[in-house]
Amino acid sequence: MGKLARGVALIGAGMSKFGTFPDKTGRELFVEAYIDALNSVDKGIDNKDIEAMFLGNFSSDIFEGQGHNGPLMADWVGLTPKPVTRTEGACASSGVAIRAGILAIASGLHDVVCVSGMEKMTDLPTSRVTDALAAASDVSYEFPAGATFPGLYATIATAHMKKYGTTIKQLRMVGIKNHNNGKLNPKAQFPVTIKELMERRIAKLKEKGEPVPSWKDEMDFLEDPVSNPIVAWPLRLYDCSPITDGAAVLFLAAEEVAKKFTDTPIHIIGTGQGSAPFALHNRPDITSLISAREAAKMAYKMAGVDPKDIQVAEVHDCFTIAEIVATEDLGFFKPGEGGKAAEEGLTARDGEKPINTSGGLKSKGHPVGASGAAQAVEIWKQLRGEAGPRQVPGVELGLTHNVGGTGGTCAVHIYRR
Amino acid sequence: MGKLARGVALIGAGMSKFGTFPDKTGRELFVEAYIDALNSVDKGIDNKDIEAMFLGNFSSDIFEGQGHNGPLMADWVGLTPKPVTRTEGACASSGVAIRAGILAIASGLHDVVCVSGMEKMTDLPTSRVTDALAAASDVSYEFPAGATFPGLYATIATAHMKKYGTTIKQLRMVGIKNHNNGKLNPKAQFPVTIKELMERRIAKLKEKGEPVPSWKDEMDFLEDPVSNPIVAWPLRLYDCSPITDGAAVLFLAAEEVAKKFTDTPIHIIGTGQGSAPFALHNRPDITSLISAREAAKMAYKMAGVDPKDIQVAEVHDCFTIAEIVATEDLGFFKPGEGGKAAEEGLTARDGEKPINTSGGLKSKGHPVGASGAAQAVEIWKQLRGEAGPRQVPGVELGLTHNVGGTGGTCAVHIYRR
Repeated sequence: MGKLARGVALIGAGMSKFGTFPDKTGRELFVEAYIDALNSVDKGIDNKDIEAMFLGNFSSDIFEGQGHNGPLMADWVGLTPKPVTRTEGACASSGVAIRAGILAIASGLHDVVCVSGMEKMTDLPTSRVTDALAAASDVSYEFPAGATFPGLYATIATAHMKKYGTTIKQLRMVGIKNHNNGKLNPKAQFPVTIKELMERRIAKLKEKGEPVPSWKDEMDFLEDPVSNPIVAWPLRLYDCSPITDGAAVLFLAAEEVAKKFTDTPIHIIGTGQGSAPFALHNRPDITSLISAREAAKMAYKMAGVDPKDIQVAEVHDCFTIAEIVATEDLGFFKPGEGGKAAEEGLTARDGEKPINTSGGLKSKGHPVGASGAAQAVEIWKQLRGEAGPRQVPGVELGLTHNVGGTGGTCAVHIYRR
Repeated sequence: MGKLARGVALIGAGMSKFGTFPDKTGRELFVEAYIDALNSVDKGIDNKDIEAMFLGNFSSDIFEGQGHNGPLMADWVGLTPKPVTRTEGACASSGVAIRAGILAIASGLHDVVCVSGMEKMTDLPTSRVTDALAAASDVSYEFPAGATFPGLYATIATAHMKKYGTTIKQLRMVGIKNHNNGKLNPKAQFPVTIKELMERRIAKLKEKGEPVPSWKDEMDFLEDPVSNPIVAWPLRLYDCSPITDGAAVLFLAAEEVAKKFTDTPIHIIGTGQGSAPFALHNRPDITSLISAREAAKMAYKMAGVDPKDIQVAEVHDCFTIAEIVATEDLGFFKPGEGGKAAEEGLTARDGEKPINTSGGLKSKGHPVGASGAAQAVEIWKQLRGEAGPRQVPGVELGLTHNVGGTGGTCAVHIYRR
């Protein structure tokens, strides 16, 4: 195992609005993201410049009844007959697509490629989506025992609480923080703070003439069993990322041609990917993901940077506990100290290690196959100083961390302005 | 678009038995293929040598209810926590995995990777398999109109018959030839000749005391509506590849390390991949696949060889018409002359251009995500002189051609001893 034969940079990045779009197909969301990405390229880019495409998608086969959708999406933006490959790593499907795109360029075969992700999930009822997602666990053991992802991540949460004393308040703080960020992201599915959700609920109760509980802050609201019902204890509704439709598109180029497209490319200086046994019962420790630690180790080594150097990161907060584990696996905080860091505000936008400035999967939304590419869209904006009201000032080094399943797959990338 | 930064060779190749295995899961078939591939490496290979894995799979989500199965398969052979990515291009899923593996090595990042394919299709009833496969067509247009793949390929066949005068006899000759080859392949699902099928049928009729039709040869038998019913005219049962369980595994290495594993590596000297609009109604001509022509053009150019140089080829005969179209798209025969070539025996094992010596998808079987990798297994054997009774003497240059859907994806690879 060696080094990339040549460097790779991000020269453009865009995404569709994330949300619930009953009137749009996956291919229409993809086109929306593609146009947004085209418009992000400073000096312009043309389809003739793009030599190949990689599409991350978890399971349009089940969600839309449409398989084989790499070339289908590509056709809708006029990229046929170029080579197009779908990659799948559950919710890390477009994280691994980024890596595939990097390898394609480093190989010398392609100078410019499109890397993308798409998922159209809301055509199915929620219970069927939960079952479809459960296909990313070990269906020979976990699913037949009744485990779907909320339950599996709840198991990780209770193990973390037992081993490290992580608290329910710390979990909730992750959600509050990510909604505070997502409020400032016009592409987010739920651009609303938890405080606003509480106020809306109070207004509604008053309107109906019903008694208003004496909540002194969001934390009380989040323990209210009607406002925030338990999904799988200790995870409640607002600990879980939503079901989302959306797409994201990136353009990657070899370093030597990147300047043709922009004077401000974002250099991808590290890529790492790891895997793990699926079933939680096969792991010696479920408070950490070995795939994430491996991916991070590879990416840091290639980039020649340490966790402390990272100034802004998008991590895979499919559930609030997942963000806490992620910030530990990435080495931002010691094992067991991720919850405390969230509680103390270290991961807030104005903290020492801003995490999920986009709103994360929690508030921005989680169209599973698109989430990894959408993380890179946020880092692109942050490192170029284009994140508007959620901009972290002066950041030059960013990271994305994209997990599939309960960590069967993890892809980590590091970016430098 | 340029050249690969370094060369890549095949250093091992193996496959499971292809067939119907109600007692085995996909992961067990994968393990069977993995062990067969391990045993094929002349000087031995250890998991510690293998740095990453790519798995081609069309839709275990639907077939087995198991998504995300790249890392799952890898875990069952002890490759975790290494990076593992599933690639999907419908029935070309492992053809595009081969390309992904080549790019991973050429990139400089990995020296040795595992490329594989797996599909476990027979757990579902046939009609549900046909519907699942139809997800690889354009489900917004083709599937709702009643079209599944037999119908779509029948449309291609009638167009080819109308434009070029291709005959039904020529279609049937492809099936007869491939079963003649598959008869000699111990891994084939149906290692039986059409003549033997005819003789079995006659014996059965006699046993039951029923009248025996006066078939003078296989061609008569193949027009018998009971023995060989119409699936979608002009395609009958024995024009269609079967539904199959199976897996195939390849080991690829950078040229500079290949000799560590074998003194007889098979050099992969060309890779090409193309895409196309899915819906047949969006194509100016349906007698040829633009994705295949593009993929072939790229692969020939990289390899620096011409169609006439290829001595043995495995092409995607999901239906008999598909093989005829393939041999034209690859430039082995002029457009419209593929049927005639089959009829004249040019593509037989002792013909001037032996095609599908393995038995092809038709006789060997078609576990869709594994078929592309299994094609490479046959070329590995042929170029190393290890194909036993089906060996074509003295071949040094081979090709694989793997199609997804009705050509939405095509991957072509060229190999030299």
